[in-house]
Amino acid sequence: MIYLDNSATTIPDRAVADEIYNMLTVNFGNPSSFHKAGLDANAKLREARASVAKLLGCESEEVYFTSGGTEANNLAIMGAAQALKRRGKRIVTTAIEHESVLQTVDELEKQGFEVVRLMPDREGNITKAQIAEAVTADTILVSMMYVNNEVGSVLPVEFIRKAVQRAGANALVHIDCVQAFGKIPVRPSKLGADLVSVTAHKIHGAKGVGALYVKKGVRILPQQFGGEQEKKLRPGTEAIPLIAGFGKACELASDLDKTAANMAQINAYARENLLAIDGVAINSPDNASDYIINFYVPVFMTSQTVVQHLSSKYGICISNGSACAKGKKSHVLTAMKLPDNTIERSVRVSFSRNTTKDDVDALVTAIKETVEDYKQ
Amino acid sequence: MIYLDNSATTIPDRAVADEIYNMLTVNFGNPSSFHKAGLDANAKLREARASVAKLLGCESEEVYFTSGGTEANNLAIMGAAQALKRRGKRIVTTAIEHESVLQTVDELEKQGFEVVRLMPDREGNITKAQIAEAVTADTILVSMMYVNNEVGSVLPVEFIRKAVQRAGANALVHIDCVQAFGKIPVRPSKLGADLVSVTAHKIHGAKGVGALYVKKGVRILPQQFGGEQEKKLRPGTEAIPLIAGFGKACELASDLDKTAANMAQINAYARENLLAIDGVAINSPDNASDYIINFYVPVFMTSQTVVQHLSSKYGICISNGSACAKGKKSHVLTAMKLPDNTIERSVRVSFSRNTTKDDVDALVTAIKETVEDYKQ
Repeated sequence: MIYLDNSATTIPDRAVADEIYNMLTVNFGNPSSFHKAGLDANAKLREARASVAKLLGCESEEVYFTSGGTEANNLAIMGAAQALKRRGKRIVTTAIEHESVLQTVDELEKQGFEVVRLMPDREGNITKAQIAEAVTADTILVSMMYVNNEVGSVLPVEFIRKAVQRAGANALVHIDCVQAFGKIPVRPSKLGADLVSVTAHKIHGAKGVGALYVKKGVRILPQQFGGEQEKKLRPGTEAIPLIAGFGKACELASDLDKTAANMAQINAYARENLLAIDGVAINSPDNASDYIINFYVPVFMTSQTVVQHLSSKYGICISNGSACAKGKKSHVLTAMKLPDNTIERSVRVSFSRNTTKDDVDALVTAIKETVEDYKQ
Repeated sequence: MIYLDNSATTIPDRAVADEIYNMLTVNFGNPSSFHKAGLDANAKLREARASVAKLLGCESEEVYFTSGGTEANNLAIMGAAQALKRRGKRIVTTAIEHESVLQTVDELEKQGFEVVRLMPDREGNITKAQIAEAVTADTILVSMMYVNNEVGSVLPVEFIRKAVQRAGANALVHIDCVQAFGKIPVRPSKLGADLVSVTAHKIHGAKGVGALYVKKGVRILPQQFGGEQEKKLRPGTEAIPLIAGFGKACELASDLDKTAANMAQINAYARENLLAIDGVAINSPDNASDYIINFYVPVFMTSQTVVQHLSSKYGICISNGSACAKGKKSHVLTAMKLPDNTIERSVRVSFSRNTTKDDVDALVTAIKETVEDYKQ
């Protein structure tokens, strides 16, 4: 199998799986217990938190573990809006966020918040000027993704803090770094972020664990109630096997520069060879993340069928948009105002640090044959 | 190590750990993806859901996976209260619930709901008469645990539905079955429950996954927003390795009768031998779950120190109350109106199906020596 759907989920690293297995079979305690089994688990919890913090370039105490990126985004946005609702009602975001941001701000809008959704250009880019214009003095929250999960566009999130300051707003800045973390540096202090969402399973960790960075001194309200875990911001027995695996995944992802250089080559090679296929067009912008290429396949089948065809005939896993949307029409390509025919026939390939040129060759061959066999 | 803290967390069964490892290394896909990796993961998701449903005695479609018992309790209570708030404001619960129920109803009380908390007797029991009296026509939700996590008292939860009907209330019934599931039958239809919370890590599954049973036709509101997973009641990429492990844990827990007979013997043996130690008194009621014994240790150390002493000197893991409370004074023993001296010097041992008489012997010897060495 050639796996090129790493933005949906990655294959856990063997060292991550081994760490998780060890936590299930040897270091199995509840980190809140006072006996040896508990203290051992607690030591691992601290170690994993330090590892995530290290890759984020923040303090351990600023890392709060969640069940994944969706929960981190929910906690950040709901928690911030509820904490600041007396200060104002204006929330600035974009039309190309992940479902867990889009639908959370939709819910806040129903509750009376004012939501401004910035529209991308035809390549999925959002400009600094748009951000500057949208952020007003009464804005309480700006929530934006760093790297778009469908087309890979990189948003100018480091400009948000500047816009907030210029507007004289007392707003919190939330950056959904799920597709950026472990691939490009996401140091919250450098990004000017108060809140940063990350998840393990996009960087060869396991599905079921993520984290929210909350800047020291920033107060958001919990969305779940219960035990004393995660300083009561996120109660519930810690998913310590997955958390330990997340720590390991962060260790393994730490050489960003080396991976980036390799990924730039893979991406350029893939673009060049995909574009050489008659009729294929790339939807991703030129400045997109090297990990994601969204492109149009000129066939009479829809993209979901292309995905299944590549899987069954070639053993190649790609995607027709966000897995979380389960095949619904892409809101990102729609916001980019691409023609319906393009939206219905576009697919996403997403790489990992383990992707090779051979994988790309196999993909290109498969797409080329598919276009020849099923030309629109 | 002798592990007698199974109400805090259990040691995952080796078959569960192996299943999880397989999901991390072989069947690693995102269950929402349309290629083979996704479809394989999705098949496992369906299989695990069926397995949990089988042990619950319900339909697969009534099982919603969560990140654990705390989230299941939060979702049940918040989701029900929000769905029914126009119908009424009265919520009936007890003073001896788990933190995730207590603090969720506290939050609802702040939001204007009326909360009635039934007080236990000195043994941690709640009576049918108390339930009948508390449930009025305007009650919208009754939330009660089946088995108390600190003393093991078994609440008459099967009576709740009757009380609701007698009162002519249009109320939802939520039962926190975290300490009952996999140990005694918790068939929701027989219990008259609309909502049932369960978790994997109390039955030799992994920490980080649980489930909420939602009776077909019952509508509660989601507490997180995002993707299409779990019919949108609980969005976010499924923690499929842990979910698969949960399914396996349910399979392994299916012979309740056999385990129950063995556990009754272990419990009787432990009670008899603990009570033979000078000054030891059992706080758990006679009709408690066989899995839990809460008892007073007549020493001058506090219970947390006793826990550490047993761990370091004897390699025996027990607990001083709920792990989620992280050493705070027990609200359960307090509600039972035990004297402060008893509360401060009481510990909990909790068994699993793997506990042996040898384990109990080691415990009894350790407690006996500790009492002799540190008599109050």
